[in-house]
Amino acid sequence: MKLNLLTTLRESNPIVLNAANFVTVQDVANGLNAIGASPIMSKEIDEVDEMVQMASSVAINLGTLTKLQIKQTKEMGILAAQAQKPVVLDPVAVGAVKHRLQTAQALLEAFPATIIRGNAGEIAALGGFDWNAKGIDAGSGSGDLDEITRKTAQKLHCTVIASGSTDTISDGEKIAHVYNGTPLFQAHVGSGDMLSSIVAAFAAVCADPFEAAQTACLVFAATGELLVNAHREVGPGTFSMYLMDYLAKVTKDELTDIAQFD
Amino acid sequence: MKLNLLTTLRESNPIVLNAANFVTVQDVANGLNAIGASPIMSKEIDEVDEMVQMASSVAINLGTLTKLQIKQTKEMGILAAQAQKPVVLDPVAVGAVKHRLQTAQALLEAFPATIIRGNAGEIAALGGFDWNAKGIDAGSGSGDLDEITRKTAQKLHCTVIASGSTDTISDGEKIAHVYNGTPLFQAHVGSGDMLSSIVAAFAAVCADPFEAAQTACLVFAATGELLVNAHREVGPGTFSMYLMDYLAKVTKDELTDIAQFD
Amino acid sequence: MKLNLLTTLRESNPIVLNAANFVTVQDVANGLNAIGASPIMSKEIDEVDEMVQMASSVAINLGTLTKLQIKQTKEMGILAAQAQKPVVLDPVAVGAVKHRLQTAQALLEAFPATIIRGNAGEIAALGGFDWNAKGIDAGSGSGDLDEITRKTAQKLHCTVIASGSTDTISDGEKIAHVYNGTPLFQAHVGSGDMLSSIVAAFAAVCADPFEAAQTACLVFAATGELLVNAHREVGPGTFSMYLMDYLAKVTKDELTDIAQFD
Repeated sequence: MKLNLLTTLRESNPIVLNAANFVTVQDVANGLNAIGASPIMSKEIDEVDEMVQMASSVAINLGTLTKLQIKQTKEMGILAAQAQKPVVLDPVAVGAVKHRLQTAQALLEAFPATIIRGNAGEIAALGGFDWNAKGIDAGSGSGDLDEITRKTAQKLHCTVIASGSTDTISDGEKIAHVYNGTPLFQAHVGSGDMLSSIVAAFAAVCADPFEAAQTACLVFAATGELLVNAHREVGPGTFSMYLMDYLAKVTKDELTDIAQFD
Repeated sequence: MKLNLLTTLRESNPIVLNAANFVTVQDVANGLNAIGASPIMSKEIDEVDEMVQMASSVAINLGTLTKLQIKQTKEMGILAAQAQKPVVLDPVAVGAVKHRLQTAQALLEAFPATIIRGNAGEIAALGGFDWNAKGIDAGSGSGDLDEITRKTAQKLHCTVIASGSTDTISDGEKIAHVYNGTPLFQAHVGSGDMLSSIVAAFAAVCADPFEAAQTACLVFAATGELLVNAHREVGPGTFSMYLMDYLAKVTKDELTDIAQFD
Repeated sequence: MKLNLLTTLRESNPIVLNAANFVTVQDVANGLNAIGASPIMSKEIDEVDEMVQMASSVAINLGTLTKLQIKQTKEMGILAAQAQKPVVLDPVAVGAVKHRLQTAQALLEAFPATIIRGNAGEIAALGGFDWNAKGIDAGSGSGDLDEITRKTAQKLHCTVIASGSTDTISDGEKIAHVYNGTPLFQAHVGSGDMLSSIVAAFAAVCADPFEAAQTACLVFAATGELLVNAHREVGPGTFSMYLMDYLAKVTKDELTDIAQFD
């Protein structure tokens, strides 16, 4: 785990281009800003090329896409792949909604994702495994998540993150886990989307997607844990505000002290 | 008033499908999540059928609709009615903007709403009463709100909530009132939209729309009052964060202690 | 500087119509509400005429516009100019994205802006000056900002605000500065967009755009400074919540005490 990447990220302030969903977009922008990246969002196909050229990485979120936005998002992914910029895909609700799964599959045929970040239900659906997903939530599947994550990574030729109370990360061979966190991440709707874009920020400053994914998951999860340790009384609303404060101020040493991973 | 419904809601975690406006959508999602429901949002007509089937209830918000979204929203309402799932309609700004009123009327001709939740100006407009509405705000009308609410419910064959410092609820015959609350609800733009979707969450776990409406209004208003009693210094920003915390932790007993309704 | 305008604004509660971007729209709505204005948002061309008539001023934000929205936004500006209502333009990212610059220029050919509010990189781009803008951020240009602001105002026949740690305001002849503020404004993504709409709220209650611009900048910047003085521990997340509280409660006397401008 290279926590030095956090310093690199803050020093280089990479531009992360987001195809964001309209539910959580403000959290995503502020989360990127807080951690030290520079967010930019677009919904218009005519500006995609220019924005991909300017960006260091791209985060594509499938939540609330319309037909027009799917077209723009596809173009964004294709241009990013041509420019060899890392692409993170967040397949919101593909575990529960077939239309979303088909959209994700069509996009992944059009361009390769560097990293895919979803909950267990979403990753299982992409990998073709049975899982009892529920709406935007992970649901109640009970398969072997290591196996599912690894196989999905193999199938889609990328790094896969199945995030949750434990984050499981695989590049198709290696498996890593991040054990830090707090249930309050699940209590706030924007957490997963924010993590996906923060993964893109780390991928912008690290040539190895597996390492970028691991580090991003640890920084995000441990930051949440640190803030809950310091503010025991927080609920989902105050947690989401403190999370921005802590993403902006957390230090490598504080993270190292509580990091739990393998 | 059946405050037991709050326990039922939290235990069954119903999926509430939202046609949300882009201004307040994050608050709506987080409010639903906090109270114990599972929010899902969509803007694409091709996924509406699947989502209606998966959802326990539907909340349709007219704020910031475009032509394309009106089409999708209409389909959502028609499919929900066919599937006999409760539909809550939030007619944002119909009191002040004729185009919005016409949109609401066209939608209500296409499918029946189970419950309509608006401020006094919006409900008066739907019922055909004079009222001096102002933008998205209730405005300064002075009609008999009981009469307006009851008549609007009769006209539209549904339960109607005119929410405000006092919430007035009618199914066309019975009238109920909720007297709890705090002026900070009006000071935060997302409050009404959040209430509408929370009404949909209660309608998902209660066969009687009038009872669902009453209980949702009481839980929401009294939760806000409880938090202001505990944090006297809050303004509109901190209120909105604490509201999520309190929606997540408020108990039936705490609500019973301060409930004021008839 | 006429801080009395704050009282006028709160007493008249002007409706500000916003063509908002989807990233920061909730902050914009809540910021307007907190300061004492009545926000309304629209994305549909069919309701623009009615909304312009009802509004006291208009704020047009170029962030995340699509082709359809550019069309609607153009109509909004033209109708507002015809109705002689003040129009504030926020040219998000025109310093870094040519497509955005062309969009801004096309809009400014279709209707005159009363006030333009951007960061240094955005104002420089509109004025045709070299500046090293970065994404949505001001970037690292080092030109004479007084000169750039004045010349851009002359070129576009309007009042121009280049906001930042110091705000520079010019009507093409006079130059004003506001020195209040806190770096936390830059740490929160919605700050600039919120300021633009608050400028529109002041323009709704003040016939002189230069004076409205100055006062809005001072009220906004000094309110942020006041809150940081009172809550030394805030980071970007808690700052954004307290900002709403303070915009709602700040008094003319508190602002006068710390105001720094020329």
